[in-house]
Amino acid sequence: MKEFKKIKKFFSPLAKSRINGTSLDNDAALLELSSLKNLVVTTDTLVEKIHFGLTDNPYLIAKKLMRINLSDLAAMGSSPLAYLLNLALPKKVTDQWLGRFTLGLKEDQKKYNIFLAGGDTVATTGPIVLSLTAFGSNQKGLYHKRSGAKEGDFIFVSGTVGDSALGLVSIKKELKIPKKDREFLIQKYFLPEPRISLGEKLLTIASSAIDVSDGLAQDINHICMSSGIGAQLFFSKLPISSSAKLLLKNYPRFKKKILNGGDDYEIVFTASSELEKKIETLSKKTRIKITKIGVMTRAKRFKILDHQNHEIKIKHLGYQHF
Amino acid sequence: MKEFKKIKKFFSPLAKSRINGTSLDNDAALLELSSLKNLVVTTDTLVEKIHFGLTDNPYLIAKKLMRINLSDLAAMGSSPLAYLLNLALPKKVTDQWLGRFTLGLKEDQKKYNIFLAGGDTVATTGPIVLSLTAFGSNQKGLYHKRSGAKEGDFIFVSGTVGDSALGLVSIKKELKIPKKDREFLIQKYFLPEPRISLGEKLLTIASSAIDVSDGLAQDINHICMSSGIGAQLFFSKLPISSSAKLLLKNYPRFKKKILNGGDDYEIVFTASSELEKKIETLSKKTRIKITKIGVMTRAKRFKILDHQNHEIKIKHLGYQHF
Repeated sequence: MKEFKKIKKFFSPLAKSRINGTSLDNDAALLELSSLKNLVVTTDTLVEKIHFGLTDNPYLIAKKLMRINLSDLAAMGSSPLAYLLNLALPKKVTDQWLGRFTLGLKEDQKKYNIFLAGGDTVATTGPIVLSLTAFGSNQKGLYHKRSGAKEGDFIFVSGTVGDSALGLVSIKKELKIPKKDREFLIQKYFLPEPRISLGEKLLTIASSAIDVSDGLAQDINHICMSSGIGAQLFFSKLPISSSAKLLLKNYPRFKKKILNGGDDYEIVFTASSELEKKIETLSKKTRIKITKIGVMTRAKRFKILDHQNHEIKIKHLGYQHF
Repeated sequence: MKEFKKIKKFFSPLAKSRINGTSLDNDAALLELSSLKNLVVTTDTLVEKIHFGLTDNPYLIAKKLMRINLSDLAAMGSSPLAYLLNLALPKKVTDQWLGRFTLGLKEDQKKYNIFLAGGDTVATTGPIVLSLTAFGSNQKGLYHKRSGAKEGDFIFVSGTVGDSALGLVSIKKELKIPKKDREFLIQKYFLPEPRISLGEKLLTIASSAIDVSDGLAQDINHICMSSGIGAQLFFSKLPISSSAKLLLKNYPRFKKKILNGGDDYEIVFTASSELEKKIETLSKKTRIKITKIGVMTRAKRFKILDHQNHEIKIKHLGYQHF
């Protein structure tokens, strides 16, 4: 009963439904889909002590949980529709924590036009475990695949890469960089910006797409594996923010974070070389930086090349997958 | 990387898709819905030490996790379509545990015609946390609500009630009852039978429906609250298995488990009194016991009456909700 009341108090205000018949009181949520051809579904779990700390701001944890899922929708070219929450909460979670957590959700619901359709809240003797499942719709029936890249396609990425991983480093270690650069990087770690609108606009342009979550190299490797071809990535072409450049100048040992850091939630996509001009125009129109960073190759190898065309070897990129 | 391989090894065989474009490799799952008007979504979380023990059979944990969700679909009159898994796994979880867990899922996938469409597996320093999100379809656009009960409608329940809660008591305490009765009750606790087919058949009969998960009294109270009316439940009419009767004869103090035990996953529904004959016929045809146990009343009170029409008071049934 106590659990029911807690759910009602904190989460009912998030469940104002655009969908007839849906409410947190029901056994299950009903999503009316009359005009939709398909539904895109994605889910992510964050665990205290693994992905966040108890003293981290619950307002930001909520937004990160929401946005990493929305980024998966963006990578499919979907627009957000509804979400579910599964929460395993230990006794130490206070009403204040829940209040700030739900405030973060509330703000992002509004920002991304999505609402809470249901979920489950249970007790646990261990760390907080938070799962969010997001539903998106692809109105025109189009969606991005990882498997569509063709030989000769260029590889592009939105925004800048590595900021989030370097932000995490800046939280864990005391590095000598200006306060505003440190804050910029940490902000990028806590508050990724899912590329929803770009993902949709790329539906008629990209031959494949993925969001940068596991690390740029790993994610491009996913495209290679799914598409059954290889790629060359030009390290010197990678878009790196001025704050990240500053940090790397002082601490060059963190350079690898650019390639394997992950958590950027930018979109990496491939497109026919003929579409390069169109992509430049899209970048100007949307004011989202889009950078050409590589090319897909017939050879089933994923190579990362430095400015002298020498291969940069990194761990955990198993060609054995081919 | 290790995590990826673990997912592939154990869970990819469960993801043989009936749906074009869906695979565990993608950022998100794509559900093609061309012929569906709506989608029913439900989710439940089970936590080690709260809902199960580490030494419990993972094969049965998997089936229970699946079936409590399918029971929610049944209560909506939906047929199973696909599911997602979110697993937070500590290091102590062995490959043997995962093997038996996935075997349980595999068997139930076949039994209930459902398949794995995606999910997320993460590490945790705490207990195992398992979430399953199930999708069902309501082909004809019909579904059960909790809110449709009318004054004078009869209340019915499928199967027997209390077995599961008494099964749990039998696990925790050493009670003097014959082995076969003990085993029957424990089986009912571990392996609920979601009433999928009955749920669908009731779509044109029931005015409201819910599955018995929180406890019979609590769940009927949910119908009262949602429908804005009251109910009288006749305790002496409740369908109780012979094993449960035997246990209660020796241990009458557990009688309240019949009303508040929960976890039966039978369907409680209301229907116009005129449909009683039709329901009897349905019961005979489907060979599922269906018992009339009460009536909906105009007075916004939920009363439980004994065989002398005296009210039985139980805790945790807040009329304050009205």
